[in-house]
Amino acid sequence: MNNNTIPYKLLLTENEIPTRWYNLRADMKNKPAPLLNPETHKPMTFEELRKVFCDELARQELDDTTPYIDIPTPIRDFYRMFRPAPLVRAYYLEKALNTPAHIYYKFEGNNTSGSHKLNSAVAQAYYAKEQGLKGVTTETGAGQWGTALSMACSYFDLICKVFMVKVSYEQKPHRREVMRTYGASVTASPSETTAVGRKILAEHPGTGGSLGCAISEAVESALSQDGFRYVLGSVLSQVVLHQSIIGLETKTALDKYGVKPDIVIGCAGGGSNLGGLIAPFMGDKIKGVADCRIIAVEPASCPSLTRGAYAYDYCDTGAVCPLAKMYTLGSSFMPSANHAGGLRYHGMSSILSQLYDDGLMEARSVEQSKVFEAATFFARCEGTLPAPESSHAIRAAIDEAVRCRETGKQETIVFGLTGTGYFDMYAYQKFNDGIMSDYIPTDDEIAKSLAKLPQVNA
Amino acid sequence: MNNNTIPYKLLLTENEIPTRWYNLRADMKNKPAPLLNPETHKPMTFEELRKVFCDELARQELDDTTPYIDIPTPIRDFYRMFRPAPLVRAYYLEKALNTPAHIYYKFEGNNTSGSHKLNSAVAQAYYAKEQGLKGVTTETGAGQWGTALSMACSYFDLICKVFMVKVSYEQKPHRREVMRTYGASVTASPSETTAVGRKILAEHPGTGGSLGCAISEAVESALSQDGFRYVLGSVLSQVVLHQSIIGLETKTALDKYGVKPDIVIGCAGGGSNLGGLIAPFMGDKIKGVADCRIIAVEPASCPSLTRGAYAYDYCDTGAVCPLAKMYTLGSSFMPSANHAGGLRYHGMSSILSQLYDDGLMEARSVEQSKVFEAATFFARCEGTLPAPESSHAIRAAIDEAVRCRETGKQETIVFGLTGTGYFDMYAYQKFNDGIMSDYIPTDDEIAKSLAKLPQVNA
Repeated sequence: MNNNTIPYKLLLTENEIPTRWYNLRADMKNKPAPLLNPETHKPMTFEELRKVFCDELARQELDDTTPYIDIPTPIRDFYRMFRPAPLVRAYYLEKALNTPAHIYYKFEGNNTSGSHKLNSAVAQAYYAKEQGLKGVTTETGAGQWGTALSMACSYFDLICKVFMVKVSYEQKPHRREVMRTYGASVTASPSETTAVGRKILAEHPGTGGSLGCAISEAVESALSQDGFRYVLGSVLSQVVLHQSIIGLETKTALDKYGVKPDIVIGCAGGGSNLGGLIAPFMGDKIKGVADCRIIAVEPASCPSLTRGAYAYDYCDTGAVCPLAKMYTLGSSFMPSANHAGGLRYHGMSSILSQLYDDGLMEARSVEQSKVFEAATFFARCEGTLPAPESSHAIRAAIDEAVRCRETGKQETIVFGLTGTGYFDMYAYQKFNDGIMSDYIPTDDEIAKSLAKLPQVNA
Repeated sequence: MNNNTIPYKLLLTENEIPTRWYNLRADMKNKPAPLLNPETHKPMTFEELRKVFCDELARQELDDTTPYIDIPTPIRDFYRMFRPAPLVRAYYLEKALNTPAHIYYKFEGNNTSGSHKLNSAVAQAYYAKEQGLKGVTTETGAGQWGTALSMACSYFDLICKVFMVKVSYEQKPHRREVMRTYGASVTASPSETTAVGRKILAEHPGTGGSLGCAISEAVESALSQDGFRYVLGSVLSQVVLHQSIIGLETKTALDKYGVKPDIVIGCAGGGSNLGGLIAPFMGDKIKGVADCRIIAVEPASCPSLTRGAYAYDYCDTGAVCPLAKMYTLGSSFMPSANHAGGLRYHGMSSILSQLYDDGLMEARSVEQSKVFEAATFFARCEGTLPAPESSHAIRAAIDEAVRCRETGKQETIVFGLTGTGYFDMYAYQKFNDGIMSDYIPTDDEIAKSLAKLPQVNA
C-alpha cells in the first residue's frame, strides 16, 4: 500500500508486555488532592478505605510516591490472554482524509469485555482473591465494567455481584447475558435486596435507576456481607494506575519504531482510559524529557472539564463514597441520555483534574451526532466498529488530522480506541435512522447543580 | 505460568500473511464432482456460471488443477486489517482440563464481522469491483456473512444488497444495524421486491422466511439488474479456496514453532471454515508428506455428513442454483431452530463431501446443549466468548483432550475458533436459563426429505 516502513500493526511480543504499572502521581509536582471522609472532611486513612476496598487497593489509592509498582504474576498471566493490545497505524483513515498526519490508535477492544476495563478488573479481582475474600460487588451502567469484572472474577473464582442500572438492564439484555455466562449475578438497580434500594423504590416506584443509586446499593451490599468488598472501574487513582499499561505498551511500541507523538488523544468520562493512555507521555512532559499536546475529549452533554468547577464533590449521588477534588458538574447533575453511557459521569479523576488545572492538558467537548459521524467514517475506513465512548477520541483525531491537511503539517497523532460498539447497535440504529439528538445542558442547569456542591474547608 | 517455550499467541508478522491461496482440489486424487445445470443436468460451463457469478469467481469455481493462486494486492491490503489472525496455545483450557494434550486454536473472530467470513467476502467484493460491476446481492441467515460482505463492499465502494431471513431480521436487529452502518441495504426476506418473494408471501402470508427463499430472492435481484452479480459465503469451491488462508497461516505459525498436529478439528455447516482450515494439512495427507486426523463437527440437529446421503442435490430450496454432489439431508430438509444458524444447512461443500467419502476425514455430530456447555467452559478459561457455530469444534476438542487425559497420551490438537458469540446472547440466555432444548431429527424425517432428491444420471 505504501513504502513506509511502519507496519499496519506495531506488534509487541508477550515478553514486551510491561511488568510494572506506572504511578504518574509520583512524578506530579502538584499532587492530586486527597480523598476526604464524607462526614469529617478529613483525608481518608488506610483504615477507613480498607473497610470498603481491598487492602492492597487501598494502599495503591493512597500511594503518590512510588513511581513503579510490580504487576503480580497471576495478573500478568491473565494480561497475556488479551495483551499486548494492538497499536495500529491508521493508514486507511489517513488515506481517506488525505492528510499528511500520521495517525496511530491503541485498540483495547480485542477482548470479550470489549474495552480497556479488563485491565483494572483483573487487578482488582486478583487482590480480592489474595486477601482471601469471597467476592466483590460493583455497579455497571453501560455494562463494559460489569462484563470485565465478571470475566476477572470467573478466572479467580470469586463471587461477583453486579448492580446494573435498571434501564440498562432492560435495554441491554445481551450485556447482562455475557455477565451471567461468566457466572456473575446481575441485579437490576434499584432493587429490593438493599435498604437503599427499597427506600428509593418506595419513593420513586417505577424508576429506571441511576449510576449513583447502583453505587449506593453495591457499597451497602459489600459492607453488609462478610468477605466482600466494593470495587469501582474508573475515577479512582488505583484504576488510573492499572490502566497505565495502555500508555506503557503504546510508548514501548512507538519507541520500537522510533515514533514520537505530537498529540495524544483520549475520551474522558471518569478518566480511567485517558489517565492510563497518557501516563508515560505526561510523565515525560512533566520531567521535561519530551513534549506533546494531550487532549481530553468529553461529550457536550456531560462536559465536566470544559464547563465544570474544580472543587470537592461526592463521587456518587447517594453521597456514601469519599469526597474527591475534581472537575465536576455537581453530583446532582443528571446527564442527558447520551449513548456513550461510559462517559455520563458528573466528575473527573482527581489526577486528570489536577493536570488539567495545571495547564498540562487540553480538553474539548463534542456533540453526539458528530461523534457517530466520525464513528461510522472510521468503521468504514479501518474495519473496526468503535464504541460510542471511543468515538469521541476518533472525532478529535479526525479534526486534528484535517487541520494538518489544511496547514500541511505532518504531525503524529495517537489516540485511544478503548472499545468496540457491538453492544451499542441501538445507538447506531438511531444514527442510521437520522433520529439522533444532541443535547447540551444550559448554563442554568449546570449552575443549579454546582450550587449544591458540599462545603469543604480543606 | 509454565516453562514451555511456546508463547500464548504464536504470532506471525504482516510479511508472513500468505500471498497465495491454496486450491486443495488440485491435489485431490478423486476430484469433487462438477456442478450441474439444474435443467440439463450437464456440467455448468464458464458461460453459464458468469451469468450469476463474477467472471474471475466463475473461473476459480471451475479450476481444479492450479494448486496456488496469487492473492491480488488490494485483497492483501484489506487482509492486513485483521490478519494474521491469532493462533493461540490454549494453556488455560489445558490446565482446566488437566490434560497432557497440547491444544491450539486459530481465532478468526477478531474483526467486526466477528467471523472468518470476511476472508472470502473481501475477495468476492474485489473481483466484482475489478469487473466494473455496480454491486452484489446475497442472503444472510445468522448474519455473519452479510456483515462481512457489507464491510468488504463498503471498502471497495460497491452497492451491497442483503436479503436477510425475516425471522433473523426481527430477532437480530443488531446484526442488521452493523450491516446498515457499513452502508448495505438490508431487506427482510421474503419481500415484495422480487417476484419469488411476492409469490411466497401470497402463498404463506406471515412466514418468517428461510435461507432457501432468501437465496432465491438474492439471485433474482442480481439477475434483474445491470451490473450486479450474486455472491455466496459458503459451500462453493471458490469460498473454500479463499478460506485456505486460515489453514495456511495456521500451518506457517505451527511450522515456525516446530509443532505438528495430531488432530485438526473444525465445525462444519456448508464447509467454508473447515475446508479452509484443513486445506494444507489435508494436502500433505494426500501427498503422504504428513498425517493427522481431521474431524468435522456438525450439529445433531442438522447432520449432513453423519446421516445424509452422498448425492446430487439442489443448493437452495428454490432450486434455482446449480446442482452439487454432496452429503445432503435433502434440500427440502427443514433444520430445527438450532442456535448455530451458520450450521443449519442441508448439504456440505463438494470438496469436503468427496474427502469424507474417500475416508480422509472423520465426522461427528454433537447436541446443542453439550455445545453450549463447552462454549461456557471455554469462555471462562480462555476469556473469549465463542460463537455457537465455533463451539461445535470446541466440544470435540475438549472431548479429545479428555480422552488424552484418560489414555495419558500427549497429542497435539488444533481447532478452528471461527468467531465470537457477541450477537448470539439470546442463545446463551436460553442456556443460562436452563431452557435450551436438543432436537434430533428422526430417521423417518431424513428419509422423507432424501426421497425428494433430484434424479440425476451423471
